[in-house]
Amino acid sequence: MTKIAIGVDIGGTNTAVGAVDREGKVLFKTSIKTPQKSENPNGDKGISKKLLSDYIGKLSGVIADAIQTVEGINKDVNITGIGIGAPNGNYYNGSIEFAPNLPFVGIVNFVNLISVKFPDIEVIKLTNDANAAAIGEQIYGGAKNMKNFAMFTLGTGIGSGLVVNGELVYGHDGFAGECGHTMLVPNGRLCGCGSWGHLEAYCSASGMKRTAFELLVKYNTTDSPIADKTYNELDPKMIFDAAEAGDKIALEVFELTGKYLGMGLADTIHHLSPEAIFLFGGITAAGDLIFKPTIDSMNEHLLPIFSKRNIQVLPSELPMGDAAIVGSSALVWKELEK
Amino acid sequence: MTKIAIGVDIGGTNTAVGAVDREGKVLFKTSIKTPQKSENPNGDKGISKKLLSDYIGKLSGVIADAIQTVEGINKDVNITGIGIGAPNGNYYNGSIEFAPNLPFVGIVNFVNLISVKFPDIEVIKLTNDANAAAIGEQIYGGAKNMKNFAMFTLGTGIGSGLVVNGELVYGHDGFAGECGHTMLVPNGRLCGCGSWGHLEAYCSASGMKRTAFELLVKYNTTDSPIADKTYNELDPKMIFDAAEAGDKIALEVFELTGKYLGMGLADTIHHLSPEAIFLFGGITAAGDLIFKPTIDSMNEHLLPIFSKRNIQVLPSELPMGDAAIVGSSALVWKELEK
Repeated sequence: MTKIAIGVDIGGTNTAVGAVDREGKVLFKTSIKTPQKSENPNGDKGISKKLLSDYIGKLSGVIADAIQTVEGINKDVNITGIGIGAPNGNYYNGSIEFAPNLPFVGIVNFVNLISVKFPDIEVIKLTNDANAAAIGEQIYGGAKNMKNFAMFTLGTGIGSGLVVNGELVYGHDGFAGECGHTMLVPNGRLCGCGSWGHLEAYCSASGMKRTAFELLVKYNTTDSPIADKTYNELDPKMIFDAAEAGDKIALEVFELTGKYLGMGLADTIHHLSPEAIFLFGGITAAGDLIFKPTIDSMNEHLLPIFSKRNIQVLPSELPMGDAAIVGSSALVWKELEK
Repeated sequence: MTKIAIGVDIGGTNTAVGAVDREGKVLFKTSIKTPQKSENPNGDKGISKKLLSDYIGKLSGVIADAIQTVEGINKDVNITGIGIGAPNGNYYNGSIEFAPNLPFVGIVNFVNLISVKFPDIEVIKLTNDANAAAIGEQIYGGAKNMKNFAMFTLGTGIGSGLVVNGELVYGHDGFAGECGHTMLVPNGRLCGCGSWGHLEAYCSASGMKRTAFELLVKYNTTDSPIADKTYNELDPKMIFDAAEAGDKIALEVFELTGKYLGMGLADTIHHLSPEAIFLFGGITAAGDLIFKPTIDSMNEHLLPIFSKRNIQVLPSELPMGDAAIVGSSALVWKELEK
């Protein structure tokens, strides 16, 4: 008997579905488009029932396909559950609540909607994407033997998942672990959430771009490849390539991003004293360029009782391309192994 | 049968001992001097065995007195355990570790030392003072029915105790919950810990004094009662009295202290999404003067999912004078009720 969990990741552009075994191996995957806000005939006023039911219909269809496909490969398969990762996903009630980049206005109980379609599947759980990544790290990755750790996902935004005493921290309402929105610079840069100076405004992909342009302005640099890119063109990969080629501006972007991120990690350590912090996202491919300044800054800002412990900052061991579905599938094993 | 827990609070100046019932009523209390760093013949090099054994002898004596006294009042009494609160107290191993203001250099296992003196008492637990306050709030105070909350103790320093899923967060090594040392202003004021810009440097008693003098400098104010105090004289009570009398500088000190504290509380909410945050310390007596700007700033810096929930910021319900022994005694009930 091969046990399989279905992982679903609801992203702003696509919704990915995968069939994942207990070791984190993806046996099958597929995806559909996530409906866009522009497709909601009610705009910001409310959810369109038709838009939602069409989407749930399509999503259930590809989940059924995934189940059928793995059952076709191996007759002796047992589908243990469905784990769903989504922005503003609330583990407690199974809802996506007020997700700014999705067309599901208000509170939509996805677990109920999917349960109706799969009445025989007992475990259907939902959480936000960064929490799913943290559980993925615990079930399949580098945190297998850890009881206290944090996961930071660095991308368009910054997400986080916090594990205390072996359990994910959901807090009073299910929304704990929003470390991307902790304060870094009072009255600093505008954050995507509408507030100011949050960590996300400095260490996300656009945060790095903002730092690069800030440095061009500071030094009035003209002989950097970054000075030949428009604000809308520049992305972290270009900054990385420039840094690899020795460009001073790009190198300082990594230095500063690490400095900022290290301060953020120090705040999380002062809260939770984790064994390790995992970083997930394309930026981790830059290796020492980002890890060294991050760790140096983190230790510089820690109380001595923490800095002398050399708390590890590690790259996530989740597979980059499949991390979202793998992380979501981990919710199922986590639930079964409680 | 009346059940009694002994609470011990090891402070920099005094060590207080109390006998406390399950409702938090202090039936008897006493105290001895805590030995000072200047009394340690080995200086910073190591602990003096004699100094330590003299202190443990005296401390055990007053604990025995407390037990005898309550047994004298009521024959039908049951001593359930001893709870100890101490700076840098480590719950996991019962040690006080590298406490900067105590003469016990290095790591000293207090629970072992006290256990030897009271072999019949099974529950002897130690944690840091702010954690003890949080447990006190949960056992006796306003957090009785809460599973997720935070306690901030505002005094000479800023301590914190974090409760997640009903349990105090100790982290990997026992030292979680040092929110006073989260970053408020990068490269800001020197903190007592040696790092820069931490919350404690802005919202502790001396933080308020620093803000007051910063404002005198900013406005070059001469007609404030604060301008007639020396840097070494000014304390939060004087600032409070001046604010009550309408002094603009003093009013702005409270406004700014609340603004800073609100940012710190927002960071904790972004980590843990608590139901409420409790504030403990003399400053809470200032009421709206401190609570209003704190709550306003907290909400201003929160993600909308949190700010619309109106997370409560409440004064601790622990009795101000006895809070330390009451909090420490709560460790015993918490342990017994696990």
